[in-house]
Amino acid sequence: MKALCFDGESVVLETDRDVPHVPEDFALVRMTHAGICNTDLEITRGYMGFTGVLGHEFVGVIESGPAHLTGKRAVAEINFACGVCAMCERRLGRHCPNRTVMGILGQDGAFAERVAVPVRNLHVVPDGVPDRSAVFTEPLAAAFEILEQIPNVENLETVLLGDGKLGLLIAMVLHRAGAKVLLVGKHPAHLDIAGACGIATTHLDAWDRTPRDLVVDATGSATGFAMAVAATRPRGTFVLKSTVADDTPASLAPLVINEVTVVGSRCGPFGPALAALADGTVDPRDMIVEDFALDEGVAAFEKAGTRGTLKVLLRA
Amino acid sequence: MKALCFDGESVVLETDRDVPHVPEDFALVRMTHAGICNTDLEITRGYMGFTGVLGHEFVGVIESGPAHLTGKRAVAEINFACGVCAMCERRLGRHCPNRTVMGILGQDGAFAERVAVPVRNLHVVPDGVPDRSAVFTEPLAAAFEILEQIPNVENLETVLLGDGKLGLLIAMVLHRAGAKVLLVGKHPAHLDIAGACGIATTHLDAWDRTPRDLVVDATGSATGFAMAVAATRPRGTFVLKSTVADDTPASLAPLVINEVTVVGSRCGPFGPALAALADGTVDPRDMIVEDFALDEGVAAFEKAGTRGTLKVLLRA
Repeated sequence: MKALCFDGESVVLETDRDVPHVPEDFALVRMTHAGICNTDLEITRGYMGFTGVLGHEFVGVIESGPAHLTGKRAVAEINFACGVCAMCERRLGRHCPNRTVMGILGQDGAFAERVAVPVRNLHVVPDGVPDRSAVFTEPLAAAFEILEQIPNVENLETVLLGDGKLGLLIAMVLHRAGAKVLLVGKHPAHLDIAGACGIATTHLDAWDRTPRDLVVDATGSATGFAMAVAATRPRGTFVLKSTVADDTPASLAPLVINEVTVVGSRCGPFGPALAALADGTVDPRDMIVEDFALDEGVAAFEKAGTRGTLKVLLRA
Repeated sequence: MKALCFDGESVVLETDRDVPHVPEDFALVRMTHAGICNTDLEITRGYMGFTGVLGHEFVGVIESGPAHLTGKRAVAEINFACGVCAMCERRLGRHCPNRTVMGILGQDGAFAERVAVPVRNLHVVPDGVPDRSAVFTEPLAAAFEILEQIPNVENLETVLLGDGKLGLLIAMVLHRAGAKVLLVGKHPAHLDIAGACGIATTHLDAWDRTPRDLVVDATGSATGFAMAVAATRPRGTFVLKSTVADDTPASLAPLVINEVTVVGSRCGPFGPALAALADGTVDPRDMIVEDFALDEGVAAFEKAGTRGTLKVLLRA
């Protein structure tokens, strides 16, 4: 089959890759659409030391697996947990220390004609949710993770730093949950997408930096941390979504003096994400910049890696 | 009156300092015992740019003020709030942006024969609590602040980094609240004080570093942060008590990957602290190393600044 792989040096299109082995309790999914994420780009710069089939954001059709699922459209959670450790027992499989992660850690990913995933990771896509929306389920779930960690954001004065792919999804989710969101970004076209959803926006240069109840750093940059700390009111909460590989020289004293709570936040629940796509309260399709065929995957990665590019999709 | 002051360069004993002016809604307190804290030591190294009468941990007798309080023993909260701003309206006077702080910020402190404090900051010391215990109310309240921020610590597997003055008080408070505390320190004599309270202890060199539910950094050192992050289990909580003035090169990615919550924690509620001293469930007097007369304040500061010294008291 065709598969877009990282060989440790560059992104390559393999055309004769074996169809993945399907262990017990796994299903085989025929990918129809997949999305390129910043993590994929970082992996191609050496992050996680991953090699193999890239990709973890996708939607497809279940080809083999339990009879009641075969033929259905599905998305899949990306952390493959062991199911038996202390974390799994606490229902924190996303933190299973023995986990593999699709396209990121020890597990081939979804930028291929077929991908194998554990049956328990599958979520059937509701009718009426187009593939080009469903392909956003994984990053949208990461946005919903904030509501799992901070259940009541209603009326919270919120500032969201970063108008990239994840930032826009978080803005939509927090706005939908009743937070008073101000999205701070650098890309007028991205801010316009949020603005069209009724979300207040400002360019970074025009931001008044008034401290707020809730601050979310989705800048993906090391400078976001200090900016976010300074923007959090005393006893406020700061959600850290940016993973920055290098050490950040950070002044931690303001966290103590202002008794700020910092909540690290990563992957999230697929259920609420699919529900929001199904009821139309989140529609991320304006974020799609371009679709590429899997054959053109190398060009798709080049496009996705261009500064300020929103979502690039792959089709199989 | 006699007062121990920082003049911007060194600690000096003034012998003819004016008795403080007592504004409306303030009381005048005759200090009987005061404690030297690490913040005092940092101030004498330039922290906060403070000059004036040092000191914020004290107990004394109310000399003038409302009739029902005069003659009573009292301790006082150290943040003098404006009472009218948005923070004060939220009952977060400890975070009032207009606040002064006794002996730390724009307000003379308690290392003097008399100190003036707002009446609303006073707490009468219950009968039966000796002065040498009551003098610990302020730092003990800072330890109780953790329970205000994380109300239920019962049975939480907890590791507490730092066996200094604040670390020992936190160990006593968390142990009393039912947390399963392991105190990690460097000073066998300090660990013995916690051990005598029934608290599990280990020397840093012998610590197994198993990640735990709750981690408290009371090391007062920049290296505590990374150690504490690594010691927090996924989805666990890390309480940051150390204020380090300089930027700390910190790897923030583990906070996101493991979805750790970091809770900055500073001053706390006096009520629970006095209650614990009154019912004897916390008795900090084993932490007292030496008492000095106020006259010997300069020598007291030298003693308190010696590495590994627990609580040095001043008497007036």
